[in-house]
Amino acid sequence: MRKIIFLFSISFVMLSCDKKEEKVLDSNQLSSEEKIDSTTIKTLFNSALTDGKSYEWLRDLTQNVGGRLSGSPEAQMAVEWGEKLMKEVDLDSVWLQPVMVPHWVRGEKEIATYTSNGVQKNVPICALGFSIATPESGVLAEVIEVKSLEEAEALGDKMEGKIVFFNRPFDDTLINTFSAYGGCVDQRVNGAAVCGKFGAKAVIVRSMTNSIDDYPHTGTMSYGDLPIEKYIPTAAISSRAAEILSTDLKENPSLKFYFKQNCETLPDAPSFNVVGEIRGSKTPENIFVVGGHLDSWDLGEGAHDDGTGVVHSLEVAYLFKKNNIKPKNTLRIVFFMNEENGTRGAKKYAELAILNKENHIGGLESDAGGHTPRGFSIDANSMNTALLQSWKKLLSPYGLHDLDKGGSGADISPLKGENVTLVGYRPDSQRYFDYHHTSRDTFDKVNKRELELGSASMASIIYLMDKYLYSDAPIKP
Amino acid sequence: MRKIIFLFSISFVMLSCDKKEEKVLDSNQLSSEEKIDSTTIKTLFNSALTDGKSYEWLRDLTQNVGGRLSGSPEAQMAVEWGEKLMKEVDLDSVWLQPVMVPHWVRGEKEIATYTSNGVQKNVPICALGFSIATPESGVLAEVIEVKSLEEAEALGDKMEGKIVFFNRPFDDTLINTFSAYGGCVDQRVNGAAVCGKFGAKAVIVRSMTNSIDDYPHTGTMSYGDLPIEKYIPTAAISSRAAEILSTDLKENPSLKFYFKQNCETLPDAPSFNVVGEIRGSKTPENIFVVGGHLDSWDLGEGAHDDGTGVVHSLEVAYLFKKNNIKPKNTLRIVFFMNEENGTRGAKKYAELAILNKENHIGGLESDAGGHTPRGFSIDANSMNTALLQSWKKLLSPYGLHDLDKGGSGADISPLKGENVTLVGYRPDSQRYFDYHHTSRDTFDKVNKRELELGSASMASIIYLMDKYLYSDAPIKP
Repeated sequence: MRKIIFLFSISFVMLSCDKKEEKVLDSNQLSSEEKIDSTTIKTLFNSALTDGKSYEWLRDLTQNVGGRLSGSPEAQMAVEWGEKLMKEVDLDSVWLQPVMVPHWVRGEKEIATYTSNGVQKNVPICALGFSIATPESGVLAEVIEVKSLEEAEALGDKMEGKIVFFNRPFDDTLINTFSAYGGCVDQRVNGAAVCGKFGAKAVIVRSMTNSIDDYPHTGTMSYGDLPIEKYIPTAAISSRAAEILSTDLKENPSLKFYFKQNCETLPDAPSFNVVGEIRGSKTPENIFVVGGHLDSWDLGEGAHDDGTGVVHSLEVAYLFKKNNIKPKNTLRIVFFMNEENGTRGAKKYAELAILNKENHIGGLESDAGGHTPRGFSIDANSMNTALLQSWKKLLSPYGLHDLDKGGSGADISPLKGENVTLVGYRPDSQRYFDYHHTSRDTFDKVNKRELELGSASMASIIYLMDKYLYSDAPIKP
Repeated sequence: MRKIIFLFSISFVMLSCDKKEEKVLDSNQLSSEEKIDSTTIKTLFNSALTDGKSYEWLRDLTQNVGGRLSGSPEAQMAVEWGEKLMKEVDLDSVWLQPVMVPHWVRGEKEIATYTSNGVQKNVPICALGFSIATPESGVLAEVIEVKSLEEAEALGDKMEGKIVFFNRPFDDTLINTFSAYGGCVDQRVNGAAVCGKFGAKAVIVRSMTNSIDDYPHTGTMSYGDLPIEKYIPTAAISSRAAEILSTDLKENPSLKFYFKQNCETLPDAPSFNVVGEIRGSKTPENIFVVGGHLDSWDLGEGAHDDGTGVVHSLEVAYLFKKNNIKPKNTLRIVFFMNEENGTRGAKKYAELAILNKENHIGGLESDAGGHTPRGFSIDANSMNTALLQSWKKLLSPYGLHDLDKGGSGADISPLKGENVTLVGYRPDSQRYFDYHHTSRDTFDKVNKRELELGSASMASIIYLMDKYLYSDAPIKP
């Protein structure tokens, strides 16, 4: 017995060694400058993983402020929270950029129901941002299911007096879930504009997610150039409810769907971007901006969208300061307001950059969640794209393999220019649309290490960008 | 107002496109054979993501069978579950391999407590697998904290009558959390063997995790060659309790820690490996084995460890059958019994392979959880390692970048040989030790897409191995 136990103990220890495969860069393959970079990057990761602050900052923002839609009291609390925190991190200067933002409010919780084969079904539903309310008595109508805007257009007047139900699901075969989102979200954004034109009574849309569950996903919509008298209420229903409704409609094409929502667009409200910077030690007139958005939808706590981006961004500055890394160029951290329904903060930031003749040489945005790092997407000229891609061997030990060309993010893309290098942080996307714009986007869905690895990844690429981009001869964008 | 809404609608649509970065292989860079492989791999992924069964299989195993420690009635239920499921997948043959396994039982829930500065603290604790019980009245003793086996050894007789507390935490700076585990687990496995020698009364060990939380992590231990009369009870306490106890000990070095556990090692029990295969169409005498382990610890549901490995493995066969991919060599799926405390199933499988003169040319094991795929570790000769690494361009569009040399897994490593190519599936490791061996290792921690991507990743590399390894001239291992 003892002997046997001893034997499997050995096999067990073998197992633990089997799984022990920490990656180390072979320093013989590195130039002396790359060795310095490799050491600095390791320092940034060690620091984030042992002394990172992002997780506790995120806890505070999500649990003490919570959901913070533009124009809400919570959004104002978030501004104050951000300004205070930037000062605590002891940035060289911290200020607010005033900006007027849309102010849409959800009102009372929405309800939806229908009866099929004598069974009454309650449907998880939520109004879409900027939708108008239903009449006080709600909307009750037959439902026409479609899979695309084109299919809806083709229906024309047949949709008059009906509720049009957009039910094209995510393409689950796309590995990057943002691609699936990109392939579906036109239904949510433009469904009401198309159907209002033909006198539909309302639009409901399947939630934007890969998951089949009971959580409706909100998000912004637009009436486009529809005359105001043709505006119709629009809402998202959960993916499971969409599947069930679709099945029920096959059996009972004339079933009547009822919903009621009380949302309202109020006059624009004053708000702010929160901005702080570490002044560059050599060429302070050159600016790298690093940011995420401070506003969020109201249903959850705005954890992955985009509390993580906010704390990632500030932690870049924190890691620089803590490790006494002095950027040559100015490192500016921005908590953008109103990404979700207007990107007014982004536009204001870019407008002021032009007005103040600021020289932005690059930017980095985190607005794809706080999951484990995968890489960055690069929106830059071909020379700088190649330069960033040449850092792959320095970044890959941290799981940062993806360095492809692609967009950066909605908040920094207004800064785009021939010589501006814009980068989007790209964490793993598999779980993102389980939470996105729902009541499930809460702090407990964020993993501490994954979040900290994100901060360190971002700090690492900013360290390299600051060191190597335009190092001798700054080029005006 | 309308105009403004329309404007941000456009900027929003820009955002979705920004994030839309599906990777596609440039087919001009592929040979004609690689194009076939690329298409087949895409088919496997599409199939797993739209028609995968692994998630529902896992739900059934974890929620209807639950935790299934070797020798338990649940382990027997799992064997029956596995055999039935393999038959449902319509493998060419399905059989059970009898194997005697250790039979350790936890007994009543453990309790632990101590008082510091007049405050009584209850400590989350669990016995380690193969530990003896405490006396019925429990163990009450002063505590000596150490950080390593060497430090304990050096204490010698000073530990007589004391509880030795191993409290070396995970090294959080290691990116691969399995490396951190490998650097700590000697405390859990061998702590009691070292301290029993010097007459310690018991051993408690900090849980094996990066996370600071309230969940004790069980796992196997060994008394090594200690005489039976020197066996002492050993248990794990939660990481947070370890931190608090350490602090309290600094203030009150003579505080007394109490715990009580009722575990027991019963006589070995009969059990089974569950085996099924698709017979090879050309060289059926050559075998690829694909497996995970069916047993689990008792505290949770054995979801990530290793229900995911079990359903991954069977889904490889399911995806081959569903897509009419006929392996040239025999594809054998094995649900190994008793990986957690004995690896008796693995040993039995290897023993029978020799006895039956089976020609195993390769193997693939999934025992690192069901998180998002990162790659494979390769334990093979240098020629075959290079061959597998040459598939990187086929695999990287699916996030499979890691193709490094390394161990495969505890259940297939007994098959190791010069010409046997053993591979370990390597998903992202960041969250794994949040759940490992705890009551939190439950179905809800597994993400459907991440799981399915794992099955498809494994099917893809097995497809390539079957096609290219030893394709013309099988080499006997």
